[in-house]
Amino acid sequence: MTDREWVAETLIPGVRFELEASRVLERRKTGHQDLVVFENELFGRVLVLDGAVQVASADEFVYHEMMAHVPLLAHGQAKDVLIIGGGDCGLAEEVLKHPSVERLIQVEIDPEVTELARKYFAEFNAPVFTDARFRLQIGDGARYVADTAERFDVVLVDSTDPVGPGKVLFTEEFYRNVRRCLKPGGVLVTQSSNPFVQKQEFAEAMRALASAFPIATCYLIAVPTYTGGHLALGWASEQLEPDVPVQELARRADAIGLETRYYTPEVHRAAFALPRYVAELMPKTGHPA
Amino acid sequence: MTDREWVAETLIPGVRFELEASRVLERRKTGHQDLVVFENELFGRVLVLDGAVQVASADEFVYHEMMAHVPLLAHGQAKDVLIIGGGDCGLAEEVLKHPSVERLIQVEIDPEVTELARKYFAEFNAPVFTDARFRLQIGDGARYVADTAERFDVVLVDSTDPVGPGKVLFTEEFYRNVRRCLKPGGVLVTQSSNPFVQKQEFAEAMRALASAFPIATCYLIAVPTYTGGHLALGWASEQLEPDVPVQELARRADAIGLETRYYTPEVHRAAFALPRYVAELMPKTGHPA
Repeated sequence: MTDREWVAETLIPGVRFELEASRVLERRKTGHQDLVVFENELFGRVLVLDGAVQVASADEFVYHEMMAHVPLLAHGQAKDVLIIGGGDCGLAEEVLKHPSVERLIQVEIDPEVTELARKYFAEFNAPVFTDARFRLQIGDGARYVADTAERFDVVLVDSTDPVGPGKVLFTEEFYRNVRRCLKPGGVLVTQSSNPFVQKQEFAEAMRALASAFPIATCYLIAVPTYTGGHLALGWASEQLEPDVPVQELARRADAIGLETRYYTPEVHRAAFALPRYVAELMPKTGHPA
Repeated sequence: MTDREWVAETLIPGVRFELEASRVLERRKTGHQDLVVFENELFGRVLVLDGAVQVASADEFVYHEMMAHVPLLAHGQAKDVLIIGGGDCGLAEEVLKHPSVERLIQVEIDPEVTELARKYFAEFNAPVFTDARFRLQIGDGARYVADTAERFDVVLVDSTDPVGPGKVLFTEEFYRNVRRCLKPGGVLVTQSSNPFVQKQEFAEAMRALASAFPIATCYLIAVPTYTGGHLALGWASEQLEPDVPVQELARRADAIGLETRYYTPEVHRAAFALPRYVAELMPKTGHPA
């Protein structure tokens, strides 16, 4: 009768978030996960993996800007950046807006996600594939940080949820291996799930982060296509605190002519103010291991 | 076979947010709207009016704390408070935590909402109904602010979305009438919809607010049961700016032994940092009328 249908997110028990697909562009089982790409009136092109919305063209800027610009502007002179996951390449696009970045390595486990993202999300990721600083490696990110001899100023973990292939990216062992790959003054930012609807997963991720790093906290963003309130991004470092003054962040952003739709220096600072119920899920102290 | 079913929110075209009802407690047409109360595993008891989630017992604290404590602590000595709407009485409960409040008038249009909320949401609203400061009036809030000779320090508009009976509560005429009812130094805080999924409604509400008040801005919260990212709460006043220092807010909160689960003085300040796409929807200047 019609090719309109509804695609359901079923990540949270008892909750279904459904988006109407005016057109389904792809539906396949990759070697790693179930994948759907479709078009929605409000959110544009949407990628769903294993029943969880990963990215939508209309609001990808929220997650990608806040995951890239918060650590990169707080660091101020990052040259070497590593992305684990990030298959849709929207995060890479934001990272490459920083002229200080000389090399961006992205380790993505599922080559089909990147292929399809290049095909369907060129609207935001096209610049990545012509940028000589960008190097995509297909492989297991957890193994990469365990083995590599490379060192990075900023490591970004743009993973799926803590189920399936993404689960290992929320463990203390993984975070310790990331720490091993950081240069002095380096920082890790990682997808740390939703402190309300994934309360246990969030608390466990924060505990693991605080066990692996002396500085471990998180900041919060609100992504329209991610249901359930705030998404937390973990921040971990040996030395770098996130509370760079607003004026200095603004100076750094202006110096590179950074154009954004969500990020501002004030939003950067504000994102670290945790609602009490989130703060209470944080471990009391880190272990400077 | 089973009495488990799914209740759908259908507020946003192309988007369905569905909650599994382990038990439906009420389903009726009131004189004003379609009403459902049910239980959900994650969100507890949930009230849906005209296909839009209004309140859930597991996350009501987010919206109610932030709507009550931000203006009340910024004001610092509010005696007379008015709530328009607020039928579930969770907002009244937060307001009445402030000992400075001598009188709280609530004008709710739909008596059945309040009756059923008293029955099903006693977990959070029970204290309201034994508090001598609380006076519930059934009536049209828009007419009330146009006619009343009462004056208030704080007016809170806890309305439904800008459709149906709630629509009038987003207009410039309504905001001007609220201004008429404010005492010197008084402040209005109002539900101002979602700047992403209800972009036009939000922009129009902010334009109307800025036409009615010299100080008009908004602040943002993330409510797990409200899909689509941030919810905006409008802030409007003749004199009172929202940027009270954190130390002073903390002093005021401590002085009354305020216990919260979302609100903190830092979160209060942080909530006014608007993502760029939200700031760009704000009118450039207010008209001090």
